[in-house]
Amino acid sequence: MQIVPKGEKAFQIINAKGHSPIVLVCEHASNHIPASLKRLGLKPEDLERHIAYDIGAFGVARGLSKLLDAPLIAQRYSRLIYDCNRSPEQPGAMPEKSEIFAIPGNRKLSPKARMDRISQISRPFHRAIEDFLDARAAALRPTALVSIHSFTRIYHGKSRTVDLGLLCDWDTRLARGANWNFPGFSTQENQPYGPADGVMHLMNLHGATRGLHHLMIEIGNDLIENQSQQQQWAKRLAKPLKAATKALGG
Amino acid sequence: MQIVPKGEKAFQIINAKGHSPIVLVCEHASNHIPASLKRLGLKPEDLERHIAYDIGAFGVARGLSKLLDAPLIAQRYSRLIYDCNRSPEQPGAMPEKSEIFAIPGNRKLSPKARMDRISQISRPFHRAIEDFLDARAAALRPTALVSIHSFTRIYHGKSRTVDLGLLCDWDTRLARGANWNFPGFSTQENQPYGPADGVMHLMNLHGATRGLHHLMIEIGNDLIENQSQQQQWAKRLAKPLKAATKALGG
Repeated sequence: MQIVPKGEKAFQIINAKGHSPIVLVCEHASNHIPASLKRLGLKPEDLERHIAYDIGAFGVARGLSKLLDAPLIAQRYSRLIYDCNRSPEQPGAMPEKSEIFAIPGNRKLSPKARMDRISQISRPFHRAIEDFLDARAAALRPTALVSIHSFTRIYHGKSRTVDLGLLCDWDTRLARGANWNFPGFSTQENQPYGPADGVMHLMNLHGATRGLHHLMIEIGNDLIENQSQQQQWAKRLAKPLKAATKALGG
Repeated sequence: MQIVPKGEKAFQIINAKGHSPIVLVCEHASNHIPASLKRLGLKPEDLERHIAYDIGAFGVARGLSKLLDAPLIAQRYSRLIYDCNRSPEQPGAMPEKSEIFAIPGNRKLSPKARMDRISQISRPFHRAIEDFLDARAAALRPTALVSIHSFTRIYHGKSRTVDLGLLCDWDTRLARGANWNFPGFSTQENQPYGPADGVMHLMNLHGATRGLHHLMIEIGNDLIENQSQQQQWAKRLAKPLKAATKALGG
């Protein structure tokens, strides 16, 4: 099945020639589901929820790309088709249920249907990141890999108190290399979830395996609902990102 | 520069339809250096040394592929052009010096020359593994990833006493899931080197990031110099490999 129309790409690269040592990634940038997949059986309003994409994350990532002069590689399709922060072996890659929402269009997918999603949505995106990082390695350019995410305030009925989460696992170089505290907001490491929850797939695949400085940033999505809030958070985050990558040329 | 001739592949897949849950990998299978690279400035006899490939490893891997009915994905070019068990960021990927041997043809490579090697030798091999594992994941087939290596007995003038090394880092499921001891030989975990030496790149890239059972097997190359020794070791290793993957259908 053709999910991504021929001639189109599953990903986009913004500011590819940016001079920053930081390469930004946004795997949950979009809630787009092509007509052929019939909204995966969901109601139109469900596609506006956090289950379909990371609300506000792409806006923050674009803002950072400009402020830092950093390349940004973003996925153009909804995480509900394939969650690019999961390996194909993880049930969450093509979830039959996301949080409390059943995803009818993901039920009992055939091997062929699963492979279509892997090969059209996930792999081209990951290979774009890989090619991009390979070219920098070949040119001996230092790289810090940073992904921008948002989380929902209420999850499974429970409220989360963290505002800014720095997911880093063992690589604390960026997370502890600058001051990430902002008055009135709570910054926490490996919250509201962490490595044990299997959410660091992209960071492990592209960051850890290359020994790159890497960090996954999670922002409460109620804080970045509109463009001006997104821009404000981009400005906030640019400062510690620059400080933490100074030794790399940031 | 065209290193791999057009129409040829940097890798080969043997027994692709094998029924075993084990997928074998041999990244240092070959000492082949195409004429265009002028032996990287080395003498013909240098290409027979462990610096050019893992002596005997491909023979053991082929033997295991047959005995286990397991697919085997092998690199067709020498590790001296690009070491597929290193990320492009690691100096050892295209080493200017390997053990005590200077590699003249790897000195001061241009970004273009480095990228040629990454894109022609390393990536096609890794993407073949990735595609292969993706297809198995899509079909919900369990997989254990096992790479076959050999090491040189004398390294930097020191003799190594281990005969069989099981490199596993945190994933001890295969290494401790069977009896790997053979009378008269010394089996040791994470010897003669281990994760801290940066030698688990392929295992991390394809095994750990997918949550697959994975294991890197290292055999003293003086034990597998000829075909009959290679076959003998394949027979030896088939037993614990089958036992350790029983739960996966091995």
